[in-house]
Amino acid sequence: MTDQQPPQYGYTRLRRIEGQVRGVARMVDEDTYCIDILTQISAANRALQAVAVGLLEQHLGHCVVEAAQKGGNEANAKVKEASDAIARLVRS
Amino acid sequence: MTDQQPPQYGYTRLRRIEGQVRGVARMVDEDTYCIDILTQISAANRALQAVAVGLLEQHLGHCVVEAAQKGGNEANAKVKEASDAIARLVRS
Amino acid sequence: MTDQQPPQYGYTRLRRIEGQVRGVARMVDEDTYCIDILTQISAANRALQAVAVGLLEQHLGHCVVEAAQKGGNEANAKVKEASDAIARLVRS
Amino acid sequence: MTDQQPPQYGYTRLRRIEGQVRGVARMVDEDTYCIDILTQISAANRALQAVAVGLLEQHLGHCVVEAAQKGGNEANAKVKEASDAIARLVRS
Repeated sequence: MTDQQPPQYGYTRLRRIEGQVRGVARMVDEDTYCIDILTQISAANRALQAVAVGLLEQHLGHCVVEAAQKGGNEANAKVKEASDAIARLVRS
Repeated sequence: MTDQQPPQYGYTRLRRIEGQVRGVARMVDEDTYCIDILTQISAANRALQAVAVGLLEQHLGHCVVEAAQKGGNEANAKVKEASDAIARLVRS
Repeated sequence: MTDQQPPQYGYTRLRRIEGQVRGVARMVDEDTYCIDILTQISAANRALQAVAVGLLEQHLGHCVVEAAQKGGNEANAKVKEASDAIARLVRS
Repeated sequence: MTDQQPPQYGYTRLRRIEGQVRGVARMVDEDTYCIDILTQISAANRALQAVAVGLLEQHLGHCVVEAAQKGGNEANAKVKEASDAIARLVRS
């Protein structure tokens, strides 16, 4: 009897990463050994990138595929936009 | 008349990144356009990496330099440990 | 009166990166200062990633768009394959 | 009866990566399937980063440790220089 939607793709993982980053801040505040903090930052980075790749897969599978099916310049524009986002992600 | 310490290096920036990641989760929840979400994830990644490099600089400047001054195997061990952390960071 | 094809996308840039990497090996051989070598390796990495993103854009614009226009499971398979390649690139 | 030196750290691996990049150019020239080319570019990137981390470890273990033992501002300058190189590497 509820109309609650399931959470969008990535939402739960992002909330978990938010908690991870809060945990890293706490480690810094408690003067944890630097190398252990760096390990946690690397883990948070990898988790963020995994969400990004998952979102990108969804985007390609929906927006880009739909634009391709409509044909015309829309598909090229979507491909260019996605490639620019991939470039930013690869450099980050 | 307070003995409050200034926050440790990176604490304030990490709390800000925590807020950034919460903002990304909200964007997902509100069904924001995927490419805009990816831009924010790239920004959070770059911010995390900047904190990591700053922490590493502190670590090299304190722990590694002190170990080098004591001499012996301690310096080698610290250099190896730091290099492994750098490798994880570069791959993440 | 020649049937020579223009080189494929990325070929010229890859040959230039090959030369860059050979230059880095020479720097190592000539005992160049380590930090200067690292700067050149970072540049070669960025150049390789730029070629990769360009190739990916071409791939999305041709293979993925064509698969989408044919419809069916082919498009999903191509999107999954491209996303896996992006994940490898982001982690590398 | 030869005074040949052993090759410097990283030289052999860099020559191998040079060959890898030449192989990628050949794949492009022969119109290999794009995703297979991307896999090879990711592998070359990871190999370059591994050499970079190895060179950095050597640099920290020699230049930075020696500067630390001499004391004074030299150590700080070396740590700053190494951190800047790490930052470029992490972003590349």
